[in-house]
Amino acid sequence: MGNAVKGADLLVRSAVASGVEVCFSNPGTTELPLVAALDSVPGMRAYLGLFEGVCTGAADGYGRMLGKPAMTLLHLGPGLANGISNLHNARRAGTPVFNVIGEHVTWHRPADPPLAMDIESMAAAVSGWRRTSTSAESLGRDAAEAVAASLKGQIATLIVPQDHQWSECEDDGISPMPEYPMQTREFPLEDAVRVLRSGKKTALIIGGRGLQREGLVQAARIRAVAGCDLLAECFPAHMERGAGLPDLQRIPYFPEMAITMLAAYQCVILAGAQKPVAFFGYKGMESPLLRDDQRCIYLGDGRDMQKGLKDLADALGAPASPDRSILARLKRPGLPEGPLSGAIICTLLAALQPEGAIIVDESITSGAHYYPQSGGAPQFSLLTLTGGSLGLGPSCAVGAAVACPDRPVINLEADGSCMYTVQALWTQAREGLNVTTLICANRSYNILKVELARAGVSYKGGNTANLLDLSGIDWVSIGQGLGVPSTRVRTAQELAVELQKALAEDGPHLIEMFL
Amino acid sequence: MGNAVKGADLLVRSAVASGVEVCFSNPGTTELPLVAALDSVPGMRAYLGLFEGVCTGAADGYGRMLGKPAMTLLHLGPGLANGISNLHNARRAGTPVFNVIGEHVTWHRPADPPLAMDIESMAAAVSGWRRTSTSAESLGRDAAEAVAASLKGQIATLIVPQDHQWSECEDDGISPMPEYPMQTREFPLEDAVRVLRSGKKTALIIGGRGLQREGLVQAARIRAVAGCDLLAECFPAHMERGAGLPDLQRIPYFPEMAITMLAAYQCVILAGAQKPVAFFGYKGMESPLLRDDQRCIYLGDGRDMQKGLKDLADALGAPASPDRSILARLKRPGLPEGPLSGAIICTLLAALQPEGAIIVDESITSGAHYYPQSGGAPQFSLLTLTGGSLGLGPSCAVGAAVACPDRPVINLEADGSCMYTVQALWTQAREGLNVTTLICANRSYNILKVELARAGVSYKGGNTANLLDLSGIDWVSIGQGLGVPSTRVRTAQELAVELQKALAEDGPHLIEMFL
Repeated sequence: MGNAVKGADLLVRSAVASGVEVCFSNPGTTELPLVAALDSVPGMRAYLGLFEGVCTGAADGYGRMLGKPAMTLLHLGPGLANGISNLHNARRAGTPVFNVIGEHVTWHRPADPPLAMDIESMAAAVSGWRRTSTSAESLGRDAAEAVAASLKGQIATLIVPQDHQWSECEDDGISPMPEYPMQTREFPLEDAVRVLRSGKKTALIIGGRGLQREGLVQAARIRAVAGCDLLAECFPAHMERGAGLPDLQRIPYFPEMAITMLAAYQCVILAGAQKPVAFFGYKGMESPLLRDDQRCIYLGDGRDMQKGLKDLADALGAPASPDRSILARLKRPGLPEGPLSGAIICTLLAALQPEGAIIVDESITSGAHYYPQSGGAPQFSLLTLTGGSLGLGPSCAVGAAVACPDRPVINLEADGSCMYTVQALWTQAREGLNVTTLICANRSYNILKVELARAGVSYKGGNTANLLDLSGIDWVSIGQGLGVPSTRVRTAQELAVELQKALAEDGPHLIEMFL
Repeated sequence: MGNAVKGADLLVRSAVASGVEVCFSNPGTTELPLVAALDSVPGMRAYLGLFEGVCTGAADGYGRMLGKPAMTLLHLGPGLANGISNLHNARRAGTPVFNVIGEHVTWHRPADPPLAMDIESMAAAVSGWRRTSTSAESLGRDAAEAVAASLKGQIATLIVPQDHQWSECEDDGISPMPEYPMQTREFPLEDAVRVLRSGKKTALIIGGRGLQREGLVQAARIRAVAGCDLLAECFPAHMERGAGLPDLQRIPYFPEMAITMLAAYQCVILAGAQKPVAFFGYKGMESPLLRDDQRCIYLGDGRDMQKGLKDLADALGAPASPDRSILARLKRPGLPEGPLSGAIICTLLAALQPEGAIIVDESITSGAHYYPQSGGAPQFSLLTLTGGSLGLGPSCAVGAAVACPDRPVINLEADGSCMYTVQALWTQAREGLNVTTLICANRSYNILKVELARAGVSYKGGNTANLLDLSGIDWVSIGQGLGVPSTRVRTAQELAVELQKALAEDGPHLIEMFL
């Protein structure tokens, strides 16, 4: 016979036993037994976000860096709703997230109290795995299964009525985590091998974990024997780059440019990437970026792609060493001077970013030049806006910094995007995280100006101008108000000084780059 | 034969013809044709929110004040998700909202591009009426039907693929709005009349529009003839109060207090209010706040209650004039002095608030004393947190100020709550809205401390303390960073000076009340 234990304790204990170490939370009354369990059960550290999008974005950043889930703890339907936007980015990134949402006490829910919502339907929009608990006893197993499910590269959402959290049941030990099936998967390699040996012009489009070191090295082995081109998907979740690693071309955002890049290939092998499609639909343009006559071979999911690329390289009889001709050499741009522009910011960052940096890029139009400039920097990680849902950067940076406390995190961030989850700066300050936020302050939703121009729409003042204009934000005051030392720069020289200062000091910093 | 017209123009023209005058928006690429239509079609003014929760909260505040819908314009699934939390509050308030969400081009959606989500399922969680458009031609009728549906006191969500917005079709004139059935509804009054004439101790629990002047006056007529007590629902959407109006007791938040208040009544008539239930479920406590032996009579919906109460008064043969004994007399508390506390803030606000003020109360624990203190103030409107979803106040204040530019708006706001939609301050500044934000800065999620104490949970530091603590926010810097003149006060005397100054000056102000 076991001792009595609360359901909340079972859940947390099982999550800890399954390897979950942190919880990004914004709890309410219906989550308080789980909050208490975060203290009564050792092994998990809780981080407060002052808005739920901070919590889910942090869980995304954490999962992208470590390949294992953080737990979230969100308050009922509204808490989930506030977190959905960044859960969407995490879903597109294939990030494991253990998403826990409190629910009203089971006997209270039918009374339709003010906070009651249809949590399950909303959770379905982002969750690959989803369950509402049925008892306190089940919470250990529920948590273990959720964590295991998340490791398939998806959001696993567990909805837990408050009485299941506080009720006591018999303690039957820790629920074992169901076996994680990733490493056992086999890839159908025959088609890819045949194409790569055929002499046809072929591109390997790499995505997911295939863009981390091990996958890239295997891709360069494949190139050594097959001569194919190596491309990166448009929005990598976590790509490792820099001197010594293969320097991949990245599929551009705008469809015309992407179609041009891809046009010459007779075959494309999707190694952890989705079949490329336009980001938006445009008049007179189809969704796919490949023609029907361009053969497409799907190798496997992004989460499995380190093994998938190794298997393919081995099947091709590739040499152990990669094609060294595509490994980037250490080559930094010179330090630019003069008034700031998007291009100058990108050049300067590429010139100064330290080895091991984690670059969270949500710079939208201002950062267009960063990727081509940064290929020869010391090795670093690049995290991008996988789902297109604005407000990822500052919170993703929180999670990356918690996951990798010894690496500097630099968030190259648009002013419009930052405002969606500006509350993340407070968490950076409270936790003393080594995050430098570089705000590209162009004071407009510039991407919409670009899209209006593409559509041939002109406007003059009026509602349109009003809806695109972001002037009147003082980022230095906002950053300081949230506890982050902040400064404003207008020239490349000033930016160089302030960036180096921020990187030399512990804790978060914000630099408003006035464009 | 008509001329060619774009679907987006049809939608906006029809909305304008149906009485929609403002659009609270945060658009993206898939909404750009509708943005352009906001200029090509005259009659609607667009307001930018830097986060979608600002837009939906503003639409709620606007609708609560005017009883007619504002339009929102939100970007795909993430835009909707960010706005759901305040749509939930609007749903609980019975506020009409015309909620418009862009969707990918119809032929592009099946390609599952990065931003694609299941918008319909998420919209269902908050929408009483919901439709995805099927063509450009239908958009005029879609908008008219949506606006009509919203006037039933609900969220009407129209999802519009971008190609329907930009496509041209034949112009067949403005779609007429389906007739709004509110004024024709009949109320079954017999049971209520019988109970009120029976001599049984009866309470009239008033909600919805019954809490505005016309409803309150009718309720006081009923009291004059029947002697019943008049109670207000716990979280009024828009209640009119002050000298000359009936002074209603309000049902308390904590269930023990509410049960005590309601225990003596043999009968309860729900006049636009829901059957009272506890806000949360608690151990050993049932959800309903009324016993089974307390008879409950449902009079009708909150939106119809001005007519419902008049019909009931007439059926009772009530005199034209109300029971004057329950009309509040002008009676202000004296100006308090000393260090600030929640009670002192409430007293001071009641002492100084100007005639016609719109008080948006999201002060949670700090504002507990405001309601009893303010009954004798000059007449004002009180808007509260109907759905319990935090982050309503600053955005609801935006909408109320846009709706009623000649009335001062005072947002009594908790620091924790404000942080959820802090971006609303920017819209207040840009639009020069007469909103004074009073931040109750107690630097904690104090309601959770109260709930932990109620549950008998003690804690010492650790994760629990960490998750309840909000220290480190400088509201003066944040307010100024968003363009709102801001100041900090620590005593009642300082608050009195700054509040009067803020009310005397045009445009928004923020006062951090350091507790």
